[in-house]
Amino acid sequence: MRFGTPPQDDGSGLECGKARVHSLHSGVEEAAAATRQSAPSEGRGWGLSMEPGGASVPAALPYYVAFSQLLGLTVVAVTGAWLGLYRGGIAWDSSLQFNVHPLCMVIGMIFLQGDALLVYRVFRKEAKRTTKILHGLLHVVALIIALVGLVAVFDYHRKKSYSDLYSLHSWCGILVFVLYFVQWLVGFSFFLFPGASFSLRSRYRPQHIFYGATIFLLSVGTALLGLKEALLFKLGSKYSKFEPEGVLANVLGLLLLCFGVVVLYILAQADWKRPSQAEEQALSMDFKTLTEGDSPSPQ
Amino acid sequence: MRFGTPPQDDGSGLECGKARVHSLHSGVEEAAAATRQSAPSEGRGWGLSMEPGGASVPAALPYYVAFSQLLGLTVVAVTGAWLGLYRGGIAWDSSLQFNVHPLCMVIGMIFLQGDALLVYRVFRKEAKRTTKILHGLLHVVALIIALVGLVAVFDYHRKKSYSDLYSLHSWCGILVFVLYFVQWLVGFSFFLFPGASFSLRSRYRPQHIFYGATIFLLSVGTALLGLKEALLFKLGSKYSKFEPEGVLANVLGLLLLCFGVVVLYILAQADWKRPSQAEEQALSMDFKTLTEGDSPSPQ
Repeated sequence: MRFGTPPQDDGSGLECGKARVHSLHSGVEEAAAATRQSAPSEGRGWGLSMEPGGASVPAALPYYVAFSQLLGLTVVAVTGAWLGLYRGGIAWDSSLQFNVHPLCMVIGMIFLQGDALLVYRVFRKEAKRTTKILHGLLHVVALIIALVGLVAVFDYHRKKSYSDLYSLHSWCGILVFVLYFVQWLVGFSFFLFPGASFSLRSRYRPQHIFYGATIFLLSVGTALLGLKEALLFKLGSKYSKFEPEGVLANVLGLLLLCFGVVVLYILAQADWKRPSQAEEQALSMDFKTLTEGDSPSPQ
Repeated sequence: MRFGTPPQDDGSGLECGKARVHSLHSGVEEAAAATRQSAPSEGRGWGLSMEPGGASVPAALPYYVAFSQLLGLTVVAVTGAWLGLYRGGIAWDSSLQFNVHPLCMVIGMIFLQGDALLVYRVFRKEAKRTTKILHGLLHVVALIIALVGLVAVFDYHRKKSYSDLYSLHSWCGILVFVLYFVQWLVGFSFFLFPGASFSLRSRYRPQHIFYGATIFLLSVGTALLGLKEALLFKLGSKYSKFEPEGVLANVLGLLLLCFGVVVLYILAQADWKRPSQAEEQALSMDFKTLTEGDSPSPQ
């Protein structure tokens, strides 16, 4: 999945041979130059502003990123407030162990996963490799926190002799966690572990981006199912009486949805993609021209 | 939101002045020509095959579309089977009136809405205006069927004196339905009702596409919440005993998710976008050059 036309080619469209590389590259370069000349910097806020270093930052991007962070932190805070106010708080060695599950999953699979997807939009001037390592690391931290959340719920079920994996939430949850882990492993093998050829990376990149965004959206959907399950098991028919816990959890559900939509919106804007630095472009073209099929270590 | 670089420009990137139009147009034309020369037609199935009329169809697209239709029809059939086998079937003037709701929402807001999004990928050689009218009509039918489903549940609640709009499912549902209706109205005003200028249409098109895909994904999420609610209200703690109804509904949930992901995948492939016909391209360029800001009636 390519989320739109990149303002400057970062190599994702270079898989179809030299002729296409050159025509795409020159065409996109021309388009980018024309965009810089003609894009309005007022009105709907889609213009590009110049950073001191010379790299351009879309004017509206920082506001959208700030809004996404505000939403993400609010989601984590409201989850904590819900568990604290209506579920007795959090502890590992008691019946409160269950509550570790929603908090960890929201921090790991929603907030940190979403932020990891935004890394390439936020860090625009840093070296590609640094940005890539930060992207991978954020996903590792998200995976570890989510794993703690999973251990918590399985351990709680075992102590209470509850069945495992019977609900739609649990089926979706296991599916999404396994997909997330596989995506990380494959992403690491292709992009960080030296060995994958340039053309292999270019072919896999759009798939990595599509499945990354999809797994994030599935995580948001799974969180909503879990929230609904937790509400209905406890409140039952009282849910329809507009109990304060029900209203707070509904608000939390809407906030989760908003966070998902805002992250998707940022990812989907073609003009907001991270432009590749001049030296990266030259490097890519050299590697493409000179070592077709070989492994470029710095990419 | 532009889902990737179109192989041939259909006018969506023409909003930033003549310079950009020409450079983008020539660059993308070059890239498309190079793609046609060099894209492999075997292997991962991403090649383009030539239709008798000369228009190219990506080789894998028909298989993905067929798979999406198989999934969509299975979703509708399994919803019907679930309501027939475990909920007593469907009728308007009885306590079975509730069951009209899930069936109508799945047919309208999931299957038909998803298919309306795919119209531009499937009808590649027809006139743009015909495709556009089909896209709008499918959404109208989807809206009407969904409205019947909404009337059914509100009427059922009224007869049973149940509360309305207390659950996360209902909040999301009303939000999504209103957004869907507004999106249809705005889309009609911009693209079918004569009057909107070419540049206005070009500026709004990426937003229309992003919000269209987002509303579809929100519809899938809302359906999952409704399914979970219906299950938990009826099964309660029996849900954890792997009751046949619970297992069938979980499978239905996974099928809904798969339909959503496959439709999103088809929309997200840049090379699968509908190419504009030669005469449409010429017409777009004429309108852009000669009547900047005026209303092009055939577009």
